[in-house]
Amino acid sequence: MITETVELAGHILDSLTLPKVLDMVISREADYRIVEMEVGRTNLDPSRVLLELTTGDSETMNKLIAELHIQGANLVGDADAEVVACETAGVLPAGFYATTNLPTRVRIGGTWIEVSYPEMDCALVVDETGARAVPMHAVRPGDPVVVGQRGVTVEPPRRARDRSAFEFMNSDASSEKPKGLIVARVADRVRAAHRATPPGKVLAVCGPAVIHTGAGPDLARLVAAGWIDVLFAGNGFATHDIESNMLGTSLGVSMAGEASGEEGHSNHLVAINEVRRHGSIAAAVKRGALTGGVMFECCTHHVPFVLGGSVRDDGPLPDVITDVVAAADAMRSHLPGVGVALMLASTLHAIATGNLLAASVETFCIDINQAVVTKLADRGSHQALGIVTDVGLFLRELADNLCRD
Amino acid sequence: MITETVELAGHILDSLTLPKVLDMVISREADYRIVEMEVGRTNLDPSRVLLELTTGDSETMNKLIAELHIQGANLVGDADAEVVACETAGVLPAGFYATTNLPTRVRIGGTWIEVSYPEMDCALVVDETGARAVPMHAVRPGDPVVVGQRGVTVEPPRRARDRSAFEFMNSDASSEKPKGLIVARVADRVRAAHRATPPGKVLAVCGPAVIHTGAGPDLARLVAAGWIDVLFAGNGFATHDIESNMLGTSLGVSMAGEASGEEGHSNHLVAINEVRRHGSIAAAVKRGALTGGVMFECCTHHVPFVLGGSVRDDGPLPDVITDVVAAADAMRSHLPGVGVALMLASTLHAIATGNLLAASVETFCIDINQAVVTKLADRGSHQALGIVTDVGLFLRELADNLCRD
Amino acid sequence: MITETVELAGHILDSLTLPKVLDMVISREADYRIVEMEVGRTNLDPSRVLLELTTGDSETMNKLIAELHIQGANLVGDADAEVVACETAGVLPAGFYATTNLPTRVRIGGTWIEVSYPEMDCALVVDETGARAVPMHAVRPGDPVVVGQRGVTVEPPRRARDRSAFEFMNSDASSEKPKGLIVARVADRVRAAHRATPPGKVLAVCGPAVIHTGAGPDLARLVAAGWIDVLFAGNGFATHDIESNMLGTSLGVSMAGEASGEEGHSNHLVAINEVRRHGSIAAAVKRGALTGGVMFECCTHHVPFVLGGSVRDDGPLPDVITDVVAAADAMRSHLPGVGVALMLASTLHAIATGNLLAASVETFCIDINQAVVTKLADRGSHQALGIVTDVGLFLRELADNLCRD
Amino acid sequence: MITETVELAGHILDSLTLPKVLDMVISREADYRIVEMEVGRTNLDPSRVLLELTTGDSETMNKLIAELHIQGANLVGDADAEVVACETAGVLPAGFYATTNLPTRVRIGGTWIEVSYPEMDCALVVDETGARAVPMHAVRPGDPVVVGQRGVTVEPPRRARDRSAFEFMNSDASSEKPKGLIVARVADRVRAAHRATPPGKVLAVCGPAVIHTGAGPDLARLVAAGWIDVLFAGNGFATHDIESNMLGTSLGVSMAGEASGEEGHSNHLVAINEVRRHGSIAAAVKRGALTGGVMFECCTHHVPFVLGGSVRDDGPLPDVITDVVAAADAMRSHLPGVGVALMLASTLHAIATGNLLAASVETFCIDINQAVVTKLADRGSHQALGIVTDVGLFLRELADNLCRD
Repeated sequence: MITETVELAGHILDSLTLPKVLDMVISREADYRIVEMEVGRTNLDPSRVLLELTTGDSETMNKLIAELHIQGANLVGDADAEVVACETAGVLPAGFYATTNLPTRVRIGGTWIEVSYPEMDCALVVDETGARAVPMHAVRPGDPVVVGQRGVTVEPPRRARDRSAFEFMNSDASSEKPKGLIVARVADRVRAAHRATPPGKVLAVCGPAVIHTGAGPDLARLVAAGWIDVLFAGNGFATHDIESNMLGTSLGVSMAGEASGEEGHSNHLVAINEVRRHGSIAAAVKRGALTGGVMFECCTHHVPFVLGGSVRDDGPLPDVITDVVAAADAMRSHLPGVGVALMLASTLHAIATGNLLAASVETFCIDINQAVVTKLADRGSHQALGIVTDVGLFLRELADNLCRD
Repeated sequence: MITETVELAGHILDSLTLPKVLDMVISREADYRIVEMEVGRTNLDPSRVLLELTTGDSETMNKLIAELHIQGANLVGDADAEVVACETAGVLPAGFYATTNLPTRVRIGGTWIEVSYPEMDCALVVDETGARAVPMHAVRPGDPVVVGQRGVTVEPPRRARDRSAFEFMNSDASSEKPKGLIVARVADRVRAAHRATPPGKVLAVCGPAVIHTGAGPDLARLVAAGWIDVLFAGNGFATHDIESNMLGTSLGVSMAGEASGEEGHSNHLVAINEVRRHGSIAAAVKRGALTGGVMFECCTHHVPFVLGGSVRDDGPLPDVITDVVAAADAMRSHLPGVGVALMLASTLHAIATGNLLAASVETFCIDINQAVVTKLADRGSHQALGIVTDVGLFLRELADNLCRD
Repeated sequence: MITETVELAGHILDSLTLPKVLDMVISREADYRIVEMEVGRTNLDPSRVLLELTTGDSETMNKLIAELHIQGANLVGDADAEVVACETAGVLPAGFYATTNLPTRVRIGGTWIEVSYPEMDCALVVDETGARAVPMHAVRPGDPVVVGQRGVTVEPPRRARDRSAFEFMNSDASSEKPKGLIVARVADRVRAAHRATPPGKVLAVCGPAVIHTGAGPDLARLVAAGWIDVLFAGNGFATHDIESNMLGTSLGVSMAGEASGEEGHSNHLVAINEVRRHGSIAAAVKRGALTGGVMFECCTHHVPFVLGGSVRDDGPLPDVITDVVAAADAMRSHLPGVGVALMLASTLHAIATGNLLAASVETFCIDINQAVVTKLADRGSHQALGIVTDVGLFLRELADNLCRD
Repeated sequence: MITETVELAGHILDSLTLPKVLDMVISREADYRIVEMEVGRTNLDPSRVLLELTTGDSETMNKLIAELHIQGANLVGDADAEVVACETAGVLPAGFYATTNLPTRVRIGGTWIEVSYPEMDCALVVDETGARAVPMHAVRPGDPVVVGQRGVTVEPPRRARDRSAFEFMNSDASSEKPKGLIVARVADRVRAAHRATPPGKVLAVCGPAVIHTGAGPDLARLVAAGWIDVLFAGNGFATHDIESNMLGTSLGVSMAGEASGEEGHSNHLVAINEVRRHGSIAAAVKRGALTGGVMFECCTHHVPFVLGGSVRDDGPLPDVITDVVAAADAMRSHLPGVGVALMLASTLHAIATGNLLAASVETFCIDINQAVVTKLADRGSHQALGIVTDVGLFLRELADNLCRD
């Protein structure tokens, strides 16, 4: 029988952390004993629990501790983290510590070092420059990689104080919520990010449905007015945005509603070809070939964007990063400083972004499909809120709200 | 081998009627021969086809003819309809003609008589007062009921000229359509109904999500401004509307967003009980116990409503018709004169209404769930258009559009 | 400032009860103080918490206590329940206690009496025959109705020990779960219900999609083999079951796959008319007019069924209870003794049943639409498990599993 | 006013081609005149229509002709195709002809040349080696690219004779269809492809839900038995397949149902790392590190696979082609000879594949989400059939059906 003690501290009751932890122990068929428990007398006080775990073998114990860790349970003890040097580029040592996206500290030489940007599903590389979450593909031979759970602590997730603005939503993603209210509250959170010290960046992750539902001009207004600080999307979003501005259609459907059919089915190819001819979106803007829309406003107002390629892309646009590992690395470079992320009717790029974001980033997942919203809100950030609604009407109201300031 | 000839006339090519008819013949493993075909040279000219059908036996032929009939194919020949007297109340004679919701004429004594209001899945009762579509439960002993297809003709469905306003939607229900545009076009159709000679009534069929998504005040505005002429709903919609006005919550969720939890989970019972105490919604309005909301505006502006009961109802409100057959009959009484039907996030009552409506009524099915929209738009009216969107934001924009007039 | 003390006891940590309760207090803007807390040292020990609540006024306190009650929090103190006589039939006294579906006891004359069958959203009537949950419509003048929360205790929800069989599902309804495994586990729970002492009845609540997806013969096998003890459905399910057996089609679509089109669109009317001619489904079976299918097996094996009417019904079948209040009452009469409820691709009747079921009934909600499953599983029984799958293939595997015994 | 004449020939009535074409003309606000119309007297005879089109300007005419072309309407006249040399690599000449996925011929020097593999949204390059559909990124300076519609004819889509096996499905994707029947018919089509002369290859395009729903072993059986000839997927599918075989979990959820929690949340990283250590999936198989599952069977039975990267990938596996343009090219190389494509709960890779497939490939899109199925079936192949069902139970039945042979 193996025994270990873990500590949980913070708002572990109202964040559901403690019950989840007990659940995990039981489903592993392990035993627990509550050694110490201090419950906050009021809702402002943190709680603290010491939990003694017993399992039949050390393998189960290691798995259990790794699981509990994701919830913010830390091994008790004063040991340093164990570090093993990477042998082969892109291959991690056995038993590597897999990161969470919670604030993380690692103990080296008796000192606790903060991990620079906590990204989940990475390795922890600790060297003279500090501690970094490094994706598997990026570890190089010789990199000192943390193995095992010992000497690593994470901060349990907590509910942001200001998220109480959304408490009427009861946390579950359902379409049956007061929508006008939700738009107003999201607008408040965007404003709050910009007013914070230091200001938080606002990231928009956009799917093609933003354009198809007619919300392109609304998102363009938000970019032009300075509300969006960085934009992630794919070839489809950018192409349809450009097509709708160059040719007045999106996927061949007229945005002004005149005609129909499969009119201009190849319009997106014409738009892509035109941008390829100029060499980049920015070049097309500079030469007057593109005079409006979201990508135009990004170029004009120097809002950085990353277009990540996908295997279904036509063309693609010259700005698309066709190597997906390079595309994810480009996205990573923009994340420090992001305070609010808006996932706008995007599945692929929203999941990709959710995988990269720190847990503390407030994330709003807007999609008309409940299954997609649930999937997105379940992953990534603990601060994610799913909003099942029509992105077309949502962005129109959001832009009306923010741009009247 | 049995042979019959049917005629199809009208806009049978661009309404897809002819291809559907040929499909049905082939899937019945019957043969067809095109005896005559006059195709409209231009899109303003009607077409006409005479089709000779051959089947192995008369039972298959009868089934085939009944199917084709739904598409507007009529048996050629000058025979009167065959009529058999009903023997038992609520039981139809064998071989009864089952109605479509297309404009229908029946030949009696050499004269073609128009069916008063074409409702589908009914019997055709022909007596001195004329020809009526009568639901099975309502036939009485002695009623002369049409049997077989002979002597009954229907007018093939056609696309309304003005529906071209929605041609950019390509007819398929998808969430990825320009939404601002769609709202504006629906508003135009509502205005057009009211301006028509004679004016068409606008029917709203409402589900509880209208209230949950915060659109109650918007729908109330539309009622108060005279845009809604009749309203169908269930106990849930009316209860949550009244609850949100009496107690500030809908299903216990605050509409103003202050608090949360399962606060006021029994508020809907309190609201129902209060109305039961007064005896009716109108009485509660009269005595000042209900001072706002959709039902309040209906009572105040004398907009008739039918609340049809369902087996899941709490209470129910005293205005709810708990016998479902009586409820459907009450709904029927309001349908003549309806020009536009708005199905607002309702499944049960929307399907019920779709079953009762004539094919010529312009019907807009608004729901956030694509499967529901497809189901609704596939049934009932040939004029149905499915709009996959958030009813909360949709009604807000619709009311803004119509009420600024 | 008002202060009250409530007690929570049982598996309040791993059932998430305590965190939910603290959440509700905070969202009501009330304060709490943990007066006493005994946490089970191990996962077999129950926990117990005494919570002192403070609110600004008594109205908020009353609402808060009512909410907490739903989670199993009981007011501390030894008072009897307050009882007020009902004045008007179907109207409850002000401040009536609204029931939960948790096991409930009420204190009268110093004695705690068990409520016979705990149904939610009812009044509590206490007389010489005991304590009963009575729906609003059924209270009669003079009925002694409990008002306020005092003197009523409920047992907090707990997870059934055997539900651990489904712990791999993580509680959230998602389609991405190992389906073969789930079918096997549901079969185990059905077997366990029948083997229990006393045996639990198995209730099937069926929507028309059971027939459309081709699972009619599989459900009929389950009925014939004795696995289903009571069946709830609507006119649609029974009609399509009978149609598919009498005429080989369901909603006009051939179940054997030969033909197609809208073949036999009126077949359901023919089937209904035939049963109406006989007077009842049982009479049609007796006279050989119906020789197979789910309803046939119910009649043959004396499995009771309730067909609850709905406003969209054609016909309806003579067995359909068209008054929805009477239909719900008929459903109520079959619920005592039900141990497992299978909600099979039904929305309307499944929600109706969920409203009536005690929290302790193991409920499996099977539907292909995640939004429906989530909605169903969120309501009614705390033991509800949502399974997002195809009911057609699910029932086939379930019948294969259970009927090979 | 501009006038052109187009010809439509084939089964243009029962394939709905003619009505669609007339629709497009009207929505372009163009006029048509039916110059000649020969309708097949019976359903075995083809029809033929000559249509004279009139528009206000030549730009509208060019767009209209391009649209009609997608439906199989060809310009009448004996001109050669116009060819312009490509100037810049990856940039097409203005007015380039955009391909459809219908069988296509191009007229050069008075001779009609068949396009080797018709892929949509490509350019048409005609040189001494023949006529090829070339994606935009692959055109090189000097490539002779067809511009305009003249001299290019396509064959209108037709329904496959054998697809009549699915006529009972009515063509629309709905979950309410007899599922046992559908599985059996899909199995028949797979068998028919293998028995054809020359045999058609069967392509499986797989999403991760195949593994999560427990269907991995069933798909592995199909691969081992020789039913799958080529497999496309992404990093997620392959990783979860390998994880479930190496570690017994999929996304950390036990496939055998023992435990739960977020057990082994990082198991997928462990599995990926292990394969990276070996260098490739095949190497891991060879060295005994991977001993079962779909990828194992592919390696063992020499079934080629393409794993196309995506921006959300962890790792990725060494076999993943991270450049999406290269990945699509790799997929292209396997398509000639494919007769049946099974899209198994995949969105990204299924859409990508649908973009590449010739219209003549029978395609079955299986997903539990109706919106996804509709989207997939609407794109790509005219032979696509959407099946809304649970891929877990579907594959189990399909494997049972095919592997008992």
